[in-house]
Amino acid sequence: MANFGVLGTGVVGPTIGSKLIELGHSVMLGARDAANEKATAWAADAGELAHHGTFRDAAQFGNVIVNATLGLGSLAALEAAGTENLAGKVLIDISNLLDFSNGFPPSVGVPSTDSLAEQIQRAHPDARVVKTLNTATASVMVDPSRVPGEHQVFVSGDDADAKASVTDLLVSFGWPASRILDLGGIATARATEFYILLWVQLYSTLGTSEFNIEVHRA
Amino acid sequence: MANFGVLGTGVVGPTIGSKLIELGHSVMLGARDAANEKATAWAADAGELAHHGTFRDAAQFGNVIVNATLGLGSLAALEAAGTENLAGKVLIDISNLLDFSNGFPPSVGVPSTDSLAEQIQRAHPDARVVKTLNTATASVMVDPSRVPGEHQVFVSGDDADAKASVTDLLVSFGWPASRILDLGGIATARATEFYILLWVQLYSTLGTSEFNIEVHRA
Repeated sequence: MANFGVLGTGVVGPTIGSKLIELGHSVMLGARDAANEKATAWAADAGELAHHGTFRDAAQFGNVIVNATLGLGSLAALEAAGTENLAGKVLIDISNLLDFSNGFPPSVGVPSTDSLAEQIQRAHPDARVVKTLNTATASVMVDPSRVPGEHQVFVSGDDADAKASVTDLLVSFGWPASRILDLGGIATARATEFYILLWVQLYSTLGTSEFNIEVHRA
Repeated sequence: MANFGVLGTGVVGPTIGSKLIELGHSVMLGARDAANEKATAWAADAGELAHHGTFRDAAQFGNVIVNATLGLGSLAALEAAGTENLAGKVLIDISNLLDFSNGFPPSVGVPSTDSLAEQIQRAHPDARVVKTLNTATASVMVDPSRVPGEHQVFVSGDDADAKASVTDLLVSFGWPASRILDLGGIATARATEFYILLWVQLYSTLGTSEFNIEVHRA
């Protein structure tokens, strides 16, 4: 059992936090403000393994960090967390850099020569960044059986040991190891971060966020 | 049976051209130069329904146009084809704007607020542009049964009649109608044109280009 610092109080952060607690881990949900209402309410409801605090508190608490902040705010959140509190730790980056400033459809807030995951890795070179889970809605992240079929989740990162531990965590979430596709180094996060544009259109076309893709090969 | 002007002499153009001929259509394969060796050889081998010529010749010949040129050269090829030869016609855009100028992985040569399909539609407002087939390798485009599973193909375009005729063509290629997903207007081509970054990584990871994705929903 580990201590997780989960940054972000939208849908993803509390969903991941509650799943981690169900699995017996301790979780501190981090927000910009210590008195964040969603974090406070979540910690009050989620049992004695649940805590809340600032981004910095959560990063200090966790020996594994989860970035579930809005993509456009992720670099600021992680700067607030303190790079010294991320050093040497596995940093699971789930966020997407969706920019809705021109309405729907959103664009990705980075050129396709880069990705949020790479920006995070560059800003925090001693963190062991692993990009994953950013291609599914929160409920499917922690319970892939909600969607039928042999659909997959992707993993990108430069640190093989960090990817192995994240893979174990994904298995504990219900992802069979055979359905966890390691795409390679952290730069391969571009692939999944730009796939999100198709995800958004499929969400619009299908009328549900509970879907995922299965890669079939000849 | 229709006359198709197929622009591009890489793998995709001749593959699509040969499939169209197998289905009984007439095809002119267009290249920058009338004496293009690949176009000449293809036309010599592909039977009496096969012709070759310049981009302009092919666009004049076709009542349906297929853009299968390299994405970075597509606007120039279509300009050479002559906007008056595209006006009123269905223009099937299969190309991806992959930029390998910085090596592997490639980036997409347009910001994610735009797409090649939209650039083509803007440059040729009287053409009825439909984006499709750009998410599969050439052999799978014309024979989806090469990959097992209920994987899909996507369609984007502003002209409903044009999309309907392209859908009929896809069915004739072997795509069941239930597996042809209409994403919406031409701007939804961004979704599939940026998905290609994931496609390229999967190609690298899987070691084959003969794969495709199936969208499963809850």
